[in-house]
Amino acid sequence: MDRRNVLKWVAGISLAFAVDISLAQGVVLPSWNEGPAKTGIVEFVKAVTDEKGKDFVPTADRIAVFDNDGTLWAEQPMYFQALFMLDQVKGAAPKHPEWKANPAFQALVAQDKAALEKLGMKPLLELMVSANSGMTVADYDKTIRDWLANSKHPKFKRPYTDLTYKPMQELLAYLRANGFRTFIVSGGSVEFMRPWAEKAYGIPPEQVVGSQQEVKFEMKDGKPVLTREAKIAFVDDGPGKPVGIYRHIGKRPIAAFGNSDGDLQMLQVTAAGEGRRLALIVHHDDAVREYAYDRTSHIGKLDKAWDEAKAKNWIVVSMKSDWNRVFGFEK
Amino acid sequence: MDRRNVLKWVAGISLAFAVDISLAQGVVLPSWNEGPAKTGIVEFVKAVTDEKGKDFVPTADRIAVFDNDGTLWAEQPMYFQALFMLDQVKGAAPKHPEWKANPAFQALVAQDKAALEKLGMKPLLELMVSANSGMTVADYDKTIRDWLANSKHPKFKRPYTDLTYKPMQELLAYLRANGFRTFIVSGGSVEFMRPWAEKAYGIPPEQVVGSQQEVKFEMKDGKPVLTREAKIAFVDDGPGKPVGIYRHIGKRPIAAFGNSDGDLQMLQVTAAGEGRRLALIVHHDDAVREYAYDRTSHIGKLDKAWDEAKAKNWIVVSMKSDWNRVFGFEK
Repeated sequence: MDRRNVLKWVAGISLAFAVDISLAQGVVLPSWNEGPAKTGIVEFVKAVTDEKGKDFVPTADRIAVFDNDGTLWAEQPMYFQALFMLDQVKGAAPKHPEWKANPAFQALVAQDKAALEKLGMKPLLELMVSANSGMTVADYDKTIRDWLANSKHPKFKRPYTDLTYKPMQELLAYLRANGFRTFIVSGGSVEFMRPWAEKAYGIPPEQVVGSQQEVKFEMKDGKPVLTREAKIAFVDDGPGKPVGIYRHIGKRPIAAFGNSDGDLQMLQVTAAGEGRRLALIVHHDDAVREYAYDRTSHIGKLDKAWDEAKAKNWIVVSMKSDWNRVFGFEK
Repeated sequence: MDRRNVLKWVAGISLAFAVDISLAQGVVLPSWNEGPAKTGIVEFVKAVTDEKGKDFVPTADRIAVFDNDGTLWAEQPMYFQALFMLDQVKGAAPKHPEWKANPAFQALVAQDKAALEKLGMKPLLELMVSANSGMTVADYDKTIRDWLANSKHPKFKRPYTDLTYKPMQELLAYLRANGFRTFIVSGGSVEFMRPWAEKAYGIPPEQVVGSQQEVKFEMKDGKPVLTREAKIAFVDDGPGKPVGIYRHIGKRPIAAFGNSDGDLQMLQVTAAGEGRRLALIVHHDDAVREYAYDRTSHIGKLDKAWDEAKAKNWIVVSMKSDWNRVFGFEK
């Protein structure tokens, strides 16, 4: 620790005072309207950080998990990773004539959401891993970064990484300022999120839990490399999410945030722990600023988890009425 | 952030000054003798933290990975987890008459180290996962904690968790004080390390990378639980270590610490990155204070990795001459 670092600590203190003052003035979570959702979050955080209260949780156990698609950023008209996969798979199709008879390939090319929903994530991931097998992980990473840099959302005409939710970014920062460690737990693959999650959410690569494919260590021209294999190692969705949390984090979260039935088991496991817990669902009910969908949607279906939220008094956030802005680019 | 937390930050500053002074007085890594190993570590850390130097690495990329058995704690006369597994497998043996013909079971019960080495970790892990399949992860965690609390090392007559290396604990803390994130990357199973790694090493559960078995989400009596299945999900050893690092951390480390051929690929991948890197091997050459073994040992064999260390100028630590104490309990 040198003098420069000490000066940084002092700067940190000034920042801490600034945060302290802003909380006193009631501007915590500024993109959230006053109401039961915001109150529920703030009261939970106050309760678990109050050292003298009955609900106090030591910082070591302040783990919060967030679904990504539909919870931290948009997921319509189709999971953004599926759009990336579509381009990848189309590019590889000439080398795979056998795909013509593959239902997942057909559904992907036709962007047939009903068929994609019915198939689930696994056959899509299978196509994807076979499209890119043999590639080094470094080359694959570049493919993703290039795609993200050069692609635009069909409705918003902006890079996909602009479609992160401002209120959720504030929530992530607010939790971390209160001693939480924040994790993404997503059905998407880790490679697709890690390049931008740190900048967008303040979440470093090692706190991104997601689906995984097999990779293999080998020496190429005297250099150690990892190459992708045409095999899925783990699907981090639905009942896979608590498994991913167990494998990767090794502790039960005290707060979980999702938006669809794919998050149900993660929310259940979080809520079932002893002591005070926070389970929250983002409800997409804003067709003007974003999209409106729930029980019958092919992407991000919210049905069973909504019923459970009502039965268990979990917080259900209305994007329309609880958020005064959705995206950072809004005026 | 409330006033209490601000006071803690102020306390942190005082601590920072204290660390600063101790460094100025040259007492960094006090259990390390002055010499090329200690100098190599300190110079590496100075180089990557010097913002004006050519080797500067931003904190986001300061990732350090540590093998556990033989690097952070002892591994003789047998991996401590193998001794735990022996007790578990013995306890389950009456329910598994088929094990009598299983070579891994025979070797484990006979504590036949040559046979165990030849078999490798996988058949042992297979026995283990079948011994405990169907158990909830919470019950399994309790089994491990109880065993660790009630078992003693045959030579040192102390709990196994006393057999962590003091110089390595200091090294972990020193790296973190310099902005590193420290991870365990071990062939052992995550469950066996997570209960005590935070106290012993300051490493939280989510920074423990290791071998994994399949676990399954299910509802039992209306409660969500995870139960163990009789199947290995991942072996984090040898060429598996860089894979574990990729899956879990998602970034190439800039520093790696091991002691055996099982760490070779992790050291290779770390050393092959661009910019300044630290690759270090702990050599067990102290038969008086600990154990002396290397090229011909059945446990923690150091042969190929030693040759590579010499060829590539990696740091090789002599426990005998580079460490002035090995364990915290020494006077």
